[in-house]
Amino acid sequence: MASSDADIDFEVRTLGPRTVPSPLAPLLERRRTSHHAVEEGDRILFDDTRSSSERRGEGELPSLEAAGPRRKIFFDPSKTRVGIVTCGGLCPGINNVIRALVSELTTHYGVRRIHGFRNGYQGFIPEYGHDVVDLTVESVDGIAALGGTILGSSRGEQDIGQVVDCLERMGISILFVIGGDGSMRGAQRIAEEIGRRDRPIGVVGVPKTIDNDIPFLDQSFGFQTAFSEATRSIRSAKVEARSAPGGVSVVKLMGRHSGFIACYAALAQNDADFVLIPEVPFAFDGPGGFLEVLRAKVRSQGHALVVAAEGAGQELFTEAEAEGGLVDASGNKRLQDVGRLLRQRITADFAAHGMELNLRYIDPSYVIRSVPANPYDSVYCTRLAHAAVHAAMAGRTNMVVGRWRRRFVHIPIQLAVSTRNRVDPNGDLWWSVLEATGQPASLGEGAEAIEVPAFGGQ
Amino acid sequence: MASSDADIDFEVRTLGPRTVPSPLAPLLERRRTSHHAVEEGDRILFDDTRSSSERRGEGELPSLEAAGPRRKIFFDPSKTRVGIVTCGGLCPGINNVIRALVSELTTHYGVRRIHGFRNGYQGFIPEYGHDVVDLTVESVDGIAALGGTILGSSRGEQDIGQVVDCLERMGISILFVIGGDGSMRGAQRIAEEIGRRDRPIGVVGVPKTIDNDIPFLDQSFGFQTAFSEATRSIRSAKVEARSAPGGVSVVKLMGRHSGFIACYAALAQNDADFVLIPEVPFAFDGPGGFLEVLRAKVRSQGHALVVAAEGAGQELFTEAEAEGGLVDASGNKRLQDVGRLLRQRITADFAAHGMELNLRYIDPSYVIRSVPANPYDSVYCTRLAHAAVHAAMAGRTNMVVGRWRRRFVHIPIQLAVSTRNRVDPNGDLWWSVLEATGQPASLGEGAEAIEVPAFGGQ
Amino acid sequence: MASSDADIDFEVRTLGPRTVPSPLAPLLERRRTSHHAVEEGDRILFDDTRSSSERRGEGELPSLEAAGPRRKIFFDPSKTRVGIVTCGGLCPGINNVIRALVSELTTHYGVRRIHGFRNGYQGFIPEYGHDVVDLTVESVDGIAALGGTILGSSRGEQDIGQVVDCLERMGISILFVIGGDGSMRGAQRIAEEIGRRDRPIGVVGVPKTIDNDIPFLDQSFGFQTAFSEATRSIRSAKVEARSAPGGVSVVKLMGRHSGFIACYAALAQNDADFVLIPEVPFAFDGPGGFLEVLRAKVRSQGHALVVAAEGAGQELFTEAEAEGGLVDASGNKRLQDVGRLLRQRITADFAAHGMELNLRYIDPSYVIRSVPANPYDSVYCTRLAHAAVHAAMAGRTNMVVGRWRRRFVHIPIQLAVSTRNRVDPNGDLWWSVLEATGQPASLGEGAEAIEVPAFGGQ
Amino acid sequence: MASSDADIDFEVRTLGPRTVPSPLAPLLERRRTSHHAVEEGDRILFDDTRSSSERRGEGELPSLEAAGPRRKIFFDPSKTRVGIVTCGGLCPGINNVIRALVSELTTHYGVRRIHGFRNGYQGFIPEYGHDVVDLTVESVDGIAALGGTILGSSRGEQDIGQVVDCLERMGISILFVIGGDGSMRGAQRIAEEIGRRDRPIGVVGVPKTIDNDIPFLDQSFGFQTAFSEATRSIRSAKVEARSAPGGVSVVKLMGRHSGFIACYAALAQNDADFVLIPEVPFAFDGPGGFLEVLRAKVRSQGHALVVAAEGAGQELFTEAEAEGGLVDASGNKRLQDVGRLLRQRITADFAAHGMELNLRYIDPSYVIRSVPANPYDSVYCTRLAHAAVHAAMAGRTNMVVGRWRRRFVHIPIQLAVSTRNRVDPNGDLWWSVLEATGQPASLGEGAEAIEVPAFGGQ
Repeated sequence: MASSDADIDFEVRTLGPRTVPSPLAPLLERRRTSHHAVEEGDRILFDDTRSSSERRGEGELPSLEAAGPRRKIFFDPSKTRVGIVTCGGLCPGINNVIRALVSELTTHYGVRRIHGFRNGYQGFIPEYGHDVVDLTVESVDGIAALGGTILGSSRGEQDIGQVVDCLERMGISILFVIGGDGSMRGAQRIAEEIGRRDRPIGVVGVPKTIDNDIPFLDQSFGFQTAFSEATRSIRSAKVEARSAPGGVSVVKLMGRHSGFIACYAALAQNDADFVLIPEVPFAFDGPGGFLEVLRAKVRSQGHALVVAAEGAGQELFTEAEAEGGLVDASGNKRLQDVGRLLRQRITADFAAHGMELNLRYIDPSYVIRSVPANPYDSVYCTRLAHAAVHAAMAGRTNMVVGRWRRRFVHIPIQLAVSTRNRVDPNGDLWWSVLEATGQPASLGEGAEAIEVPAFGGQ
Repeated sequence: MASSDADIDFEVRTLGPRTVPSPLAPLLERRRTSHHAVEEGDRILFDDTRSSSERRGEGELPSLEAAGPRRKIFFDPSKTRVGIVTCGGLCPGINNVIRALVSELTTHYGVRRIHGFRNGYQGFIPEYGHDVVDLTVESVDGIAALGGTILGSSRGEQDIGQVVDCLERMGISILFVIGGDGSMRGAQRIAEEIGRRDRPIGVVGVPKTIDNDIPFLDQSFGFQTAFSEATRSIRSAKVEARSAPGGVSVVKLMGRHSGFIACYAALAQNDADFVLIPEVPFAFDGPGGFLEVLRAKVRSQGHALVVAAEGAGQELFTEAEAEGGLVDASGNKRLQDVGRLLRQRITADFAAHGMELNLRYIDPSYVIRSVPANPYDSVYCTRLAHAAVHAAMAGRTNMVVGRWRRRFVHIPIQLAVSTRNRVDPNGDLWWSVLEATGQPASLGEGAEAIEVPAFGGQ
Repeated sequence: MASSDADIDFEVRTLGPRTVPSPLAPLLERRRTSHHAVEEGDRILFDDTRSSSERRGEGELPSLEAAGPRRKIFFDPSKTRVGIVTCGGLCPGINNVIRALVSELTTHYGVRRIHGFRNGYQGFIPEYGHDVVDLTVESVDGIAALGGTILGSSRGEQDIGQVVDCLERMGISILFVIGGDGSMRGAQRIAEEIGRRDRPIGVVGVPKTIDNDIPFLDQSFGFQTAFSEATRSIRSAKVEARSAPGGVSVVKLMGRHSGFIACYAALAQNDADFVLIPEVPFAFDGPGGFLEVLRAKVRSQGHALVVAAEGAGQELFTEAEAEGGLVDASGNKRLQDVGRLLRQRITADFAAHGMELNLRYIDPSYVIRSVPANPYDSVYCTRLAHAAVHAAMAGRTNMVVGRWRRRFVHIPIQLAVSTRNRVDPNGDLWWSVLEATGQPASLGEGAEAIEVPAFGGQ
Repeated sequence: MASSDADIDFEVRTLGPRTVPSPLAPLLERRRTSHHAVEEGDRILFDDTRSSSERRGEGELPSLEAAGPRRKIFFDPSKTRVGIVTCGGLCPGINNVIRALVSELTTHYGVRRIHGFRNGYQGFIPEYGHDVVDLTVESVDGIAALGGTILGSSRGEQDIGQVVDCLERMGISILFVIGGDGSMRGAQRIAEEIGRRDRPIGVVGVPKTIDNDIPFLDQSFGFQTAFSEATRSIRSAKVEARSAPGGVSVVKLMGRHSGFIACYAALAQNDADFVLIPEVPFAFDGPGGFLEVLRAKVRSQGHALVVAAEGAGQELFTEAEAEGGLVDASGNKRLQDVGRLLRQRITADFAAHGMELNLRYIDPSYVIRSVPANPYDSVYCTRLAHAAVHAAMAGRTNMVVGRWRRRFVHIPIQLAVSTRNRVDPNGDLWWSVLEATGQPASLGEGAEAIEVPAFGGQ
């Protein structure tokens, strides 16, 4: 930190003592256990980088390794062969990451052999017969304008032994994995198997999650593009609702465990009357329940717009309503279709109350996730990929790159998959949503908002 | 911070000792004095919030006050009258800030009297005769879809005494100023005059700068919208250059002192061959100078695309080339038109070398700054405005709200206008630009890049 | 026509006699009965306007009345009270028509009382209790930027007697109806009832059909916006298909009886491998059937993209597959969900052939129909509305305005609802689609393309 | 025409005799000589196709040859070698035309050798040394998403003898020229020289003009994309004007001789207060002159927005104001910069009247002309190109394809360059502009609107 910092006055003036209880005080009570709780004396450190010498004095403060190029590296570029694989669902920006990996490896480090494996982890397994694609600066030029992934993708795991066999057989030194939490767990197992075989092969991930639910990231790449695109559906849903008597529109957005896309899209477009997210349970029936409040809204405003994350309301499904059962064969909870449930319940409720209903249901998931990255995500993907290349060339492995509090960092995969980033029901983001929608803080009794650990960007 | 943090493993594995000198090492040497220099042992603190008790133990670590609602506030909402004014050039998102200020004041705090002053600080001065606009939740509904500011704006200062007279006369308790550094200096003087008169009137700013040059902000509002819009001009300029023999396109973008828009837009679109910014001086002539490298690019590629921030190359103007003289009447340096100089020099140089030239010049400034905020900036403006309302109701004054390392903070105006955020020529952002354009790190001899203090988001 | 036309040489030169049979000749055979059939000597009249004197000489040539302002009008503007109603499904541009009706009536004719009836024909019926909206130049300013209709809409007919009672009670002189073919039939019955009561009330329609299926129109308003918006879904569907092994995407677009949106969107985006429209029946099974050709496409290309108009394949539903039965209570054919049938058949077929399938289904209808008009439709709606005002003020009734061969014309409602505009399977448009997709002219045996009368723009 | 037409009732009902003089009657007087003049009895022919037999009976009615595939063609596809060249300024859609030419020639006709000449007519001249590009269905896939022309372009003519030498040397049978009126005149001379040499080489043009000024076209390709893009600048200019005291924005749009882009863009966006076009002269000074009316607008509305076609006001330049003189070396009139003149005059006038002025000047030409074709133009370009291929294969030469009254037609080049399509000051389009802007029909005395011949789409 520059020594001149000592001269800087960081103190804000206050007009005088505060004696008026805030109208927000009741809400603030609920924040006590949250990292959003701001106590009077709280301060944000101006500089959060600590060098090794400083760290000794600070004892136990948790910290992450800083990303960036190192003066000495582990791999000899002229002898390095690199593999890239993309796994899981689509997300805006994957091609930008591929392009920037290839460009940085080639231009700045002089790596000349870069291979793309096709269709996720299937690409390593001989029986699928997928070809391997040579990637050059020329062949990846222009791919950023396309959505999706030029390498193809697939879900699910493959035999780890066969994957490492393939890496060894092809002489791969570094494997870049662009994928979600499942794929990162796969990458971790690959790195562990490499470790067991004691091979000098690095495994570096670029975490991909359109839901923004990977912890230790300010925001995941593609997230801004995704919620921006989602605002189009919200705008359309508003127009539909407003243009018909008893118009109720329901927009289902991505978000199995985390309601970030729903929150940001609703805040950005400012048309939603209700936002339903997994982190804030609600009740359909009873006084103050969703249906009662919805009816009141339609009566007063003439129409209503509901934005629901796909993971919202999972606790409301009865066994009878759960398509395919509440749990799957392995006993895992099955994600139920909250869109269908909302349509059923709203239709039945309005009929029971003799109210005209024109219900429109919009699920734009495929259209959202397949658009090209917007300019912001385009830059972000490029810089993430550059950080990943620096880390990999320096010999880091079993890690992902991320951006935490605006600093590019290295995160052990184990840490990145240890929990989820979720919307804090006691945080500023959710409060801004409540303010923008005008929906009550609680829809129905007995619904208890979740506790969110402080591991994620809001 | 949650106590369970102790159990988390933040360590990244490394494959082995690093012995290979990095091809990037020469570039890294230049980073030694920059906050972008990452030493081997550097760590990023996981949590940068410090409570008052913790702070005592840390001694001198500079920090900023955290933003957010307080349990006790200074102003009684039912008796509070609020003024809002917008000053300086246009920037995407101003109307979003106005809307969110009005909405938060009304909905969450119950403030009922909010007035908009017209056309910047002119609005306080009787002789201009501008009317005052009552702002309500209804009247600001829908304004976010418009660009510009519904209140109008103007540049320049007005008599501070008359401004404070007006605030007193109208019984204003809180004045929100949305404006750039000049306007913030004005707000500071207003707060000081209020202090001299010992009146309980708060002055809280929302800093506006399309150039992203205000320090202590991750990014200023509207910046993402602006550079995203700028990519359209870059795309067009590329098409023009590519479609004519000897095609050279020059795009001039905003950025008087800081090249952020030029850098981000060029990175996002990835079509530029040269990016010229104020922070990195260059020479036209001589070996390795801009014109020689440009000619080589047109010879090899058939065309070239130059993106220049308006503040680039100011040191290159001779007195003869400076329109209106190098300095103005007050002796201040006058911003010269680098676009005109580039056109003159390129035209003369290509003619001197007998090369065909089809030069296209694009200056999209007005079109960029007047678009509505994109969804990201829309959310960001809303949250900034909410933070400003919390600060003002809690009695803070002579300050602006900001977002630093993803945390909303309070910044004394004095601090916010004390320096500028600039692109660090030794930082990752500029390196990514060099990598994307392929332009040499230095264009001509003797051009020394500036030293950038560590006060801004990159 | 200008007399100087006589000097103009309209003759095109030919290099010499043609002796080579065209590869397209077999296709051309099928055009014999179509208005797309071009015989060697065919000519397009340069000017298609005929004055009354000329017409006598031409005998029986069918023609339409030209639209435009007249020197004498029927209604005294100062005493004229106007009603506007919007009926049926949403379509881009309705608000533009409303705005331009109000603006032209007010500015050019000086009409001062214009009323909007809410929610379609419901708005005339007392028991619904909908309010009537006063429309002024000020109140309609800015509505064109919104999608949908500010007046609200509803489907279905109301009691004609009550509608005319309402018009009489309110002293309405002119009723503008913006609606589809069902609404136009309603407007016709209203005009007839007015005729029976011998009241001087004009009924003038602006025909609305997102499907572009109203005859005697070059294109219906909103159609260009709609198919342009549909290209976004096609692009996304292509990305999805391309990014997964065995990727097959199905996009269902509007078009109950006419495949125009499917054809234009597929041509504009040029990504579709199959376009299925109501006018060209197909078979699922058998040699050359859809499923066989689809499998071949996925085998050769790796993926496939199917665009289907909602009215395609209606003849393929068995009674068992028809949801709610093939016919409704009144014995009318029920529109079956071809999207569901395609998903079922493709899934079963790929499973039966042991092929991996990643099926994505996209139905963007609500998002398409609710967007604001694009600039072209914005202009077109304005000009249509101006033509409607001129017609109504001149005393025309029981008619709609249209644009036929680029000329604004008056069309009796009876004529406008007498048939449908459909894609001609022997016309240039469909041929261009076949060329762009590469799909065979016939998918399966026994499927006979329909005969299309020559009443519509292609 | 189908025989069943006889049963169709094309008659529109009228409520009764018209006795009220229309408020528009004075304006209508001026229409007498225009093809927009609609007399009471005027009719639009339903079908404007005439077969040779019918034509005999009709005597002198001018007509154009219908486009479309013929049963017999002139060239043997297996032996046909095709050239494509693009000339003149950029226009959205050129790449779509190239793609569709290649696709139709290859897929439907089986032509296998297609060559692209680089950088306009330069591409035929050996001394420029431009390479020739082989065009295949694969190489043109995806080019429609790019703006500009992949072949490059240049202005100006080359030696006709050398061009035809090149065609002969390379064995070209068909040359497609995509270019404006200058390029079409070049194509005509090429065809004539080929005629003199008596070679079987066809020359077929696809007329390109962003100004929409080529006659016998409903609209030229790219025009819709262009005016749609121009609405963005108008929206920005409105925001700028509205956001500053004394805000006056001037937008200069393309249109050297014809104000179509200015008219359509202004109508579509509906924000302009003044539209200045070449067809409607105006005066700056004097009562009712532009400056007086502008001042009145700024006084009443607070700001004003002026949209000017680049060819507007050419008659207002004095010799002193004309940059480079009013005429060039060859004595041709030089196009003067009306944007500069407007800025000078407005600035001087507001200063002289002591009015505050914040003038913004926007010239978006390069950004407009370089965007990719929108979906409509994408389809239109495809269909135009298909028509061009059919014509060329059938042996037509010295002609261009066009769309007249929605029918694809063949137009002799001589006819296509014989006049210009211009906005008719007495037509509906201009009237709609007057209605939308509220500007007076005449700005200043002595300014006489031009007479427009009836050769173009409005």
